Amino acid sequence: MSQTRNESTNGPQDGTRRQPVSIPFSSRLLEGRALAQDVWSIFNAANLPSDCLNLGQGYMNFAPPKWITDAATEALNTVGANHYSHPKGRPRLRKAIKQFYGSQFNRDLDVESEILVTSGANEGQYSVFVAFLEHGDEVIMFEPFFDQYLPSVTFNGGKPVYVPLHPPSRDITKPTSNDWTIDFEELRAAVTPRTKIIIVNTPHNPVGKVFTRTELEKIAALAEEFNLLVMADEVYDCLVFDNKEHVRIATLPGMWERTVTVGSAGKSFAATGWRVGWLIGPASIISPTLAATTRIVFCSNSPLQEAAAAGLEQAVEHQFFENQLKEYQERRDIFVDALDQLGVTYTLPEGTYFVLMDSSSVKFPDDYPFPKTVLGRGRDFRACWFIAMEIGVSSIPVSEFYCEEHMSLGENYIRFSFCKDLDTLKAAAARLQNLKKYLA
Amino acid sequence: MSQTRNESTNGPQDGTRRQPVSIPFSSRLLEGRALAQDVWSIFNAANLPSDCLNLGQGYMNFAPPKWITDAATEALNTVGANHYSHPKGRPRLRKAIKQFYGSQFNRDLDVESEILVTSGANEGQYSVFVAFLEHGDEVIMFEPFFDQYLPSVTFNGGKPVYVPLHPPSRDITKPTSNDWTIDFEELRAAVTPRTKIIIVNTPHNPVGKVFTRTELEKIAALAEEFNLLVMADEVYDCLVFDNKEHVRIATLPGMWERTVTVGSAGKSFAATGWRVGWLIGPASIISPTLAATTRIVFCSNSPLQEAAAAGLEQAVEHQFFENQLKEYQERRDIFVDALDQLGVTYTLPEGTYFVLMDSSSVKFPDDYPFPKTVLGRGRDFRACWFIAMEIGVSSIPVSEFYCEEHMSLGENYIRFSFCKDLDTLKAAAARLQNLKKYLA
Repeated sequence: MSQTRNESTNGPQDGTRRQPVSIPFSSRLLEGRALAQDVWSIFNAANLPSDCLNLGQGYMNFAPPKWITDAATEALNTVGANHYSHPKGRPRLRKAIKQFYGSQFNRDLDVESEILVTSGANEGQYSVFVAFLEHGDEVIMFEPFFDQYLPSVTFNGGKPVYVPLHPPSRDITKPTSNDWTIDFEELRAAVTPRTKIIIVNTPHNPVGKVFTRTELEKIAALAEEFNLLVMADEVYDCLVFDNKEHVRIATLPGMWERTVTVGSAGKSFAATGWRVGWLIGPASIISPTLAATTRIVFCSNSPLQEAAAAGLEQAVEHQFFENQLKEYQERRDIFVDALDQLGVTYTLPEGTYFVLMDSSSVKFPDDYPFPKTVLGRGRDFRACWFIAMEIGVSSIPVSEFYCEEHMSLGENYIRFSFCKDLDTLKAAAARLQNLKKYLA
Repeated sequence: MSQTRNESTNGPQDGTRRQPVSIPFSSRLLEGRALAQDVWSIFNAANLPSDCLNLGQGYMNFAPPKWITDAATEALNTVGANHYSHPKGRPRLRKAIKQFYGSQFNRDLDVESEILVTSGANEGQYSVFVAFLEHGDEVIMFEPFFDQYLPSVTFNGGKPVYVPLHPPSRDITKPTSNDWTIDFEELRAAVTPRTKIIIVNTPHNPVGKVFTRTELEKIAALAEEFNLLVMADEVYDCLVFDNKEHVRIATLPGMWERTVTVGSAGKSFAATGWRVGWLIGPASIISPTLAATTRIVFCSNSPLQEAAAAGLEQAVEHQFFENQLKEYQERRDIFVDALDQLGVTYTLPEGTYFVLMDSSSVKFPDDYPFPKTVLGRGRDFRACWFIAMEIGVSSIPVSEFYCEEHMSLGENYIRFSFCKDLDTLKAAAARLQNLKKYLA
């Protein structure tokens, strides 16, 4: 590499003073909370006590199975798997997706036109918005929503329209995620002539709700009536507990043609940093989305696509998903037992690795030394901060996942992630008992 | 994973016929050639004779160094490097970038605000357009241009404005990439009140041009006069031959504050499939771009960021870039010697791994059985097809890298990539001699 001579970075040579440079950024960053300090930064481990147990962010503190990382190493030792993949995804991974998921969709999936590998589920969803949103098109999302949806929609000229999942009635002493309900009149009223997409996240982050067949049929009927594209975000599809039926909306009558289903190697194989996800849907949706993702990232990384392929190819022989589900069910049970013992109300999740706790019974002093970042926001921001500082367990405030108008619906809830090893969960369970003295 | 019952994907149960589903894709796909069949698909190995030597696409047929892939394996054997990275990039990689490139920018780069790791250089550039383009903003690009720029700009509401690099005069018998010249009056005339960004790709794909200090000073003066953001695409920065000076425009007086420089682990370490790139620039550019990339991909993949960090950390002790440059110079020389022997005109590249050959002297029969995909396009499309079929060496037509209006400027040229092992290049050199009988 040749070196360059730096003449000056501090102004012109002639002694005059240049105007400071000011190049305005795009107004699209002013929408969708794109520049707001997000909860992940506020409740980042770096801001919390060093011995705080991190049940905030949803990533595992354990590694993917060795037989899968070994497949990545094997790929790294070849030539081809270190170079560009086809923008559609590596043939081996597309074939593995077809073999593994085809029966769940009751289809002989076409690897050329009905499967698209993306740089994580996140970029897959972003690409669908690039491919389908016209300026002013509306996207319906249920609250609380995965926070990335919002700027992904507004960056591409879309307008988010919010429909709340209604929290369980106070009369229910042991609510489950099934007690978070949709008001279908409210949903219908949210549809306008500009509605283009509805996002259905099941199993649902952060509620843990697994949408019922009846709920999905009603959503499907609306999608057909108003010709909507359904984005079925099913990245937690391998985490459905208690033999609850997980219905894929794409499999309901007539829905295949208007549904794109989102999957994730990161969630499936405990590898959130691999950035390999996929979309499954009809060619009419996959083809424009391929045109979008090709320009955004060109392709997803190759070695970890090979590893994800190995994961799907060998999952059955390793009974991987069955065992992983049992492990997660044990993690969930340890965590909710601790909440039972503590005597707080929470939502038992039917899926995902999240538990919502009702934090309204936690009393903290008004003059507690809260940082500015959590003041002036929902009460849940202060509850999370207080619990992290005093109890040593971090969580995420749920009001962040609501629009301004509906924020009060969420501000009783805080989200714990139980995608952690048993030692961490047991330690967190023990620490949480110290919350008893702050309960009203 | 629970299985779902598929009721029907072929229509309603009641025997009536549903209307076929039609959900229109976004009109943004109609611009920027986003849906056109691109050259990469037309000249894909799958469409060519199976023994054709692929000098078309610019990826290596050799692997990254083992000491770098070993670092990826090491990362895969940890927990943390399999999970989310910070959207800014992993601290180790940002520190390695600072250490390696800081002196080239004559700056003590701030790892928190002046360096951003992206999912390949491509996604980094896309994120800058998301972050800075307002609808109708203009982006100046020199032709021939890297084809991804075009849709990346139009997807985000920008308008591409083209300024040609003028091909060497016919009088020059041995042109180099330095003989491709900018008409600065033409460049100035291209600036309008809506011009926001100018892209400067040096070393330049596909010309191989390494912009001179004088050229960059003139571009810099225009950028200052009209308050433009400069995107310095320098992904081939480690491939500058013959001790030619590679000037980084960011180091010219006053330019740091308005320049974002793009780098690539894929190009640097022969790992185009890793999708790890980076941006270096002032906080005023990096910060909005971080907001964009965080929503598009959230973060780049973690294990290969660790490997890229190891590559930069240990490059000096391995004399990696010095040796790699020597190897590429040898590759270039083998290839251009073959063209000399053949007696065709070509542009000797000062940088990159591309050679442009003037194909106007290659005569092919008008009634040659060309496929429809190459008919009705520049003559170079037919020249590339003919050479691939008859000689067994693939290349890429350069008119693809021009706007419609200027396409004729490029249609004499075809691009060969010499990022291939010596055996392949020697075999290609031998085959190309068979072209002699078709030369006029």
